[in-house]
Amino acid sequence: MKNNLIVNFTPTGMIPTKGMTSHVPVSVAEIVEDVRQAVEIGITMVHLHARDEITGVPTYKKEIYGEMIAGIRKFAPELVICVSLSGRDFSEIEKRSDPLLLEGELKPDMGSLTLSSLNFNKTASVNSPETVANLARIMKEKGIVPELEAFDVGMINYAKYLERKELIKAPHYFNLLFGNIACSQANLLHSGVMINDLPEKSLWSLAGIGTDQLKMNSLAIAIDGGVRVGLEDNIWYDTERTRLATNSDLLKRVHLIAKANERGVMSPREFRAKMNLQPGHGLYGRALNFKNNENGTQETLLSVG
Amino acid sequence: MKNNLIVNFTPTGMIPTKGMTSHVPVSVAEIVEDVRQAVEIGITMVHLHARDEITGVPTYKKEIYGEMIAGIRKFAPELVICVSLSGRDFSEIEKRSDPLLLEGELKPDMGSLTLSSLNFNKTASVNSPETVANLARIMKEKGIVPELEAFDVGMINYAKYLERKELIKAPHYFNLLFGNIACSQANLLHSGVMINDLPEKSLWSLAGIGTDQLKMNSLAIAIDGGVRVGLEDNIWYDTERTRLATNSDLLKRVHLIAKANERGVMSPREFRAKMNLQPGHGLYGRALNFKNNENGTQETLLSVG
Repeated sequence: MKNNLIVNFTPTGMIPTKGMTSHVPVSVAEIVEDVRQAVEIGITMVHLHARDEITGVPTYKKEIYGEMIAGIRKFAPELVICVSLSGRDFSEIEKRSDPLLLEGELKPDMGSLTLSSLNFNKTASVNSPETVANLARIMKEKGIVPELEAFDVGMINYAKYLERKELIKAPHYFNLLFGNIACSQANLLHSGVMINDLPEKSLWSLAGIGTDQLKMNSLAIAIDGGVRVGLEDNIWYDTERTRLATNSDLLKRVHLIAKANERGVMSPREFRAKMNLQPGHGLYGRALNFKNNENGTQETLLSVG
Repeated sequence: MKNNLIVNFTPTGMIPTKGMTSHVPVSVAEIVEDVRQAVEIGITMVHLHARDEITGVPTYKKEIYGEMIAGIRKFAPELVICVSLSGRDFSEIEKRSDPLLLEGELKPDMGSLTLSSLNFNKTASVNSPETVANLARIMKEKGIVPELEAFDVGMINYAKYLERKELIKAPHYFNLLFGNIACSQANLLHSGVMINDLPEKSLWSLAGIGTDQLKMNSLAIAIDGGVRVGLEDNIWYDTERTRLATNSDLLKRVHLIAKANERGVMSPREFRAKMNLQPGHGLYGRALNFKNNENGTQETLLSVG
């Protein structure tokens, strides 16, 4: 039997604006609603970026992350929640680590950890060795698991270095991202090298920027990997860019391709078991009492154990 | 017949200090003397880093680069001279481009252009898209050819992007550097992908950090590539680190391996012809009158045309 597909849902990101696409969820209510729809369709985890409610620009503030997490856990207590610790707009460690200070029922399961500095199309994303180590250390102390973000070949080697330094610990989860202009490209050779280099027992998803999202998602489904999918990386449904996508559009297409490839979606519970995550941070013992959705999505999530 | 070996000599760099090895040349006089010895052994080009005469720390100042270039051109007017435009210690474009302001007989042939941001072991090296474009633009205006520095797979793609934007123009020369902890590693898969991805008609050399220098130099000699060699990347002669190397030690070993592989050293003149460089910046028409060295090295350089 084929293994189940990790669906890492990335609804918002830091780049898409309402001006680019009205479909991108920006406010807490919009993001929570898109996650609700995504959970009904079927996802394993969500990668959250917070935006300022008034200006719509990215924010690091834990209060906004806390509101999103509270909203999502009302209907999906087992969903694996990852917060962005991106340094794209904020470089200070205090700002970047702010969402890691959430506690109890608001505590995230995971935090993103970009493994080196890189260039995006127009800006440098600076993640100095010191910053990477500090974020890893804080997550280790808090029992929050890093979502390891690798944009090029060398970043996999750096993850192995962090493991040797005992700043991160297997089993790992990697997002491998392809198609940024100064990073690994969306082809078999680059992705093959990166997957080949992963530490043993790593789970991983493939992401592609823009029209490369469909390519890398389909490729991942074909070769037993997971997918990172959502408007964060790609706002168009079609390669010709004639139709703006919704998050649901993108998720439904992934489901369609997965089903045709005999792959079911990995439940948050299965992912938690593989990654040694608690059954729901701050929610231990509560998940099993959760009322199932009418369409059975949560039933799947809760049917184990 | 096998093609001639590009020997890109890197005597100093930004990292080695006299405390680490007494063999590293730091003052203008020391660097010029190491280049003089290297020219006698046989090199194609030199990659210069300037140091402050008193403190020994790296400096961007054109005055010091000018002194080195003047000193070198007295005995090797055709040697291809590349100045470092590294952002490792200086980020402002005015500082980084300072050596490009040298004119006439002091004008460098080439300037290093790191193609993206990256992490070294302890620090981030920030080369934002704007900085890379600005350095490329200044070099284009001045007829100085970029030495393209690629530390990971995606940087090759960025060179192709700069070419499409007409900021750089073929034929290109690349240094492919391996073995930094968060960059491409010194193995066949990583180097194979990067070489495979190079634009057509590119010349290239392989560099390795520390004990990887010998490995990547030998590999390059075996597969028709060039070498970047010198104390900048590696201060030890042996893998066990029992003996500190001199620049001459490292060059002589490269010559020995090259000879056994039926490869001669590419003359500066051959490199200039392949790269469309003038016969010697500011020295046009003068090179042929240059008096040969006793050991014939310069004779080789001058025997064409």
